[in-house]
Amino acid sequence: METTNIRMAEITSKKPMYREAIAEGTIYLKESTVERIKDKTLEKGDPISTAEIAGILAAKQTSQLIPLCHPIPITNVKIDMFLEGNSIRSQCKVKSIGQTGVEMEALAGVSIALLTIWDMVKPYEKDEQGQYPDTSITNIRVIKKFKESEEENESEKSSSESLRTKT
Amino acid sequence: METTNIRMAEITSKKPMYREAIAEGTIYLKESTVERIKDKTLEKGDPISTAEIAGILAAKQTSQLIPLCHPIPITNVKIDMFLEGNSIRSQCKVKSIGQTGVEMEALAGVSIALLTIWDMVKPYEKDEQGQYPDTSITNIRVIKKFKESEEENESEKSSSESLRTKT
Amino acid sequence: METTNIRMAEITSKKPMYREAIAEGTIYLKESTVERIKDKTLEKGDPISTAEIAGILAAKQTSQLIPLCHPIPITNVKIDMFLEGNSIRSQCKVKSIGQTGVEMEALAGVSIALLTIWDMVKPYEKDEQGQYPDTSITNIRVIKKFKESEEENESEKSSSESLRTKT
Amino acid sequence: METTNIRMAEITSKKPMYREAIAEGTIYLKESTVERIKDKTLEKGDPISTAEIAGILAAKQTSQLIPLCHPIPITNVKIDMFLEGNSIRSQCKVKSIGQTGVEMEALAGVSIALLTIWDMVKPYEKDEQGQYPDTSITNIRVIKKFKESEEENESEKSSSESLRTKT
Amino acid sequence: METTNIRMAEITSKKPMYREAIAEGTIYLKESTVERIKDKTLEKGDPISTAEIAGILAAKQTSQLIPLCHPIPITNVKIDMFLEGNSIRSQCKVKSIGQTGVEMEALAGVSIALLTIWDMVKPYEKDEQGQYPDTSITNIRVIKKFKESEEENESEKSSSESLRTKT
Amino acid sequence: METTNIRMAEITSKKPMYREAIAEGTIYLKESTVERIKDKTLEKGDPISTAEIAGILAAKQTSQLIPLCHPIPITNVKIDMFLEGNSIRSQCKVKSIGQTGVEMEALAGVSIALLTIWDMVKPYEKDEQGQYPDTSITNIRVIKKFKESEEENESEKSSSESLRTKT
Repeated sequence: METTNIRMAEITSKKPMYREAIAEGTIYLKESTVERIKDKTLEKGDPISTAEIAGILAAKQTSQLIPLCHPIPITNVKIDMFLEGNSIRSQCKVKSIGQTGVEMEALAGVSIALLTIWDMVKPYEKDEQGQYPDTSITNIRVIKKFKESEEENESEKSSSESLRTKT
Repeated sequence: METTNIRMAEITSKKPMYREAIAEGTIYLKESTVERIKDKTLEKGDPISTAEIAGILAAKQTSQLIPLCHPIPITNVKIDMFLEGNSIRSQCKVKSIGQTGVEMEALAGVSIALLTIWDMVKPYEKDEQGQYPDTSITNIRVIKKFKESEEENESEKSSSESLRTKT
Repeated sequence: METTNIRMAEITSKKPMYREAIAEGTIYLKESTVERIKDKTLEKGDPISTAEIAGILAAKQTSQLIPLCHPIPITNVKIDMFLEGNSIRSQCKVKSIGQTGVEMEALAGVSIALLTIWDMVKPYEKDEQGQYPDTSITNIRVIKKFKESEEENESEKSSSESLRTKT
Repeated sequence: METTNIRMAEITSKKPMYREAIAEGTIYLKESTVERIKDKTLEKGDPISTAEIAGILAAKQTSQLIPLCHPIPITNVKIDMFLEGNSIRSQCKVKSIGQTGVEMEALAGVSIALLTIWDMVKPYEKDEQGQYPDTSITNIRVIKKFKESEEENESEKSSSESLRTKT
Repeated sequence: METTNIRMAEITSKKPMYREAIAEGTIYLKESTVERIKDKTLEKGDPISTAEIAGILAAKQTSQLIPLCHPIPITNVKIDMFLEGNSIRSQCKVKSIGQTGVEMEALAGVSIALLTIWDMVKPYEKDEQGQYPDTSITNIRVIKKFKESEEENESEKSSSESLRTKT
Repeated sequence: METTNIRMAEITSKKPMYREAIAEGTIYLKESTVERIKDKTLEKGDPISTAEIAGILAAKQTSQLIPLCHPIPITNVKIDMFLEGNSIRSQCKVKSIGQTGVEMEALAGVSIALLTIWDMVKPYEKDEQGQYPDTSITNIRVIKKFKESEEENESEKSSSESLRTKT
């Protein structure tokens, strides 16, 4: 009796090409907490740079966190944070020249960045019973996925040259 | 000139006590994808067990993923997945007898579990342009946080005895 | 006085080429435990998918586990489990287009998959003294190692084209 | 519809007590390779110390490698290697004062130690086709598991005192 | 023939007690680079917070980086950075209530924090040949190591109470 | 309001080319400790091989330790240790065929190798108060950084051929 079912996607024969993905998500906080972040008066320090760093590290670790993800030669991870009223929106852009897409890397970067924000504002978000009635992470999605089409790829002398104008 | 700002919470003098946290989140998919999951006809195998395992591993790694989290002696991580129409809701419960709460561990468990679902249903969620118009992770929040109050703790002979009836 | 001895193999000048390796190993259990696995009545859940996932993750981590292994661009890890009487045989196949072989990755995948089986059947394998008289992991070996020879490699227009028929 | 099955063992209410486990395994090599190891003439350096270090690191990482293992406060890992004819036997002893046993840690230590030996002797074990006809890892098992019984534990003033004579 | 030599320190019978360690180190840079850091005009962003976060994460990972270090229940890591002329001095303080000292954790925190500074100022420190004539990390040492003596420990009602005044 | 500042260097359009870096650093110890190391009479075993292995593993982990470092296809890490009077000098050479330099990898390798030496000689370096008056790590710097220039690269048929004579 053979029992098997978990299978990674087969990418062995895919051509390395330029790929990028942008993912986004939002954390809702108390408006007073977002004000504190703007005023840089949090006890634990600046959550924005901490979240960006945590997200970048997580994006690079995606193949260890998500079981069927391939190790990918990431060439860039960029995380942006937008403070908007009672929320912070995070956007993560990942680039690679590889054999498979980088949307999971971008999603992992956004997710861990937003969790890091949560961790740094815990004392301001908890109510008297230690609960979080106002805090939630929401709307994590892939804004855009892009890969250089094979045609473009072949019509240009080298993929690195073509990238010089794009990046 | 001194420049410092990133600070972990000081837990050195806190008493170890029983703590638990439950976090939840939902991934929206195409209804046909959720049907495929129920029918167990995914090319990559069963996403439910894969997501549960990934979430459990992530919860145990929280202090490496979220910079200011403390290493915590986790005693249990449990992940449940509920298939509901065009969505899957994930719930993660973490237990510890330690000096600080485990809500970040529960949130990390839920987040990585949901990302793992996404990774395993990619071929069914992508449209012809390789985009994900229907897929999103949403409403990640802490359902409940609990710690044994100091009074309870002291009025009982040993915390492990009192736990025997609770867990 | 100079004291040095630990040396990684020098692969800098090796050509990237298609490589694969298959490793195998067997865990012996009580026959009743293997029956329970078939009947899916284990308290901890399905050990087969858990072992497959753990093995895939471990194969991808090989260069962190085995000190002199190179980081390798793995393109696929596949683990199969065969339930046979009082044993489970595990086979792990790893593919890469890289500068060195992937047999250590395949061996690491098999080893961790089998250890994961053990972990999930502990209550059924322990005797009254908490010992494991019937449990053992055995016969871990490399079934097959393959690399595309340089001749083949050069006689074809592109290695990715040649792979399309192979994989 | 609820779909859940992967469950960690519940150890929350267990008392921390002294626990140890000893696991063992053997790698079969060519006799000439074992001779080379004794003569310390391997190109990659001493495989014995490398394997011991890799095994110690792996034992400490067990809860990241084996999905349902708990993080455990390991107090000692010791690996011994015995060169015997055409084989090397490895023994790993792990100690902890914790809520669950350490046999998986000992098994992980032995397994990675033996894989590390394999990695370091690859050039001497491969035949002309790059295969490993003589190499295998076998007989990985738990030699002994021990925990301080509750009675002993309570009859002594402090567990640390009682340990002073044992370790 | 038995061949063994790598041995972790035996801490099984040691009493958990309050421990702290402070380590320090300095990175020398061009004075113009330190000015840029003060002016916050680095292309890669603020190296101070990035270094603090990297150092905190590294301190928590010490038992994975340094082979014979024990996993330790760290309760706090604090990193301070002092900008002084053409250098940045980093100080890392680690606290734990555990069975062994935390000086290696403090040293790892300082070391990785200083390496992170280096990484973030690379474009300003390299000369035309891509070399680093002005950059060096120096004087990494343990400033202070402290543990609560057994006498103090016993003369107070509870170690957590005594800590409340100290921390 | 947008708040962003942490940015990885953009290497997407850079050509992969041969790169190497050599870093160096020194740990000062008591002369008697260096003698013990030469005599191989340390309680914890040989610190030289342990440090070499720890340094190699750390160099391979650099992109996880230093937040803005890219994952790099390292092809070789070599660590040498020189025992000199009351000090040990460590040198780490890293090679890669990639899109960015490997000096951070070499610096990480040296740093963790030297910290590992410290860990293994702790009992001999501590004074009666448990302090380390004689121990320090110093002069960590990049000895040499090299990349194959674009001209050389293009004037030769294949980079792997040209490397055969260099490595």
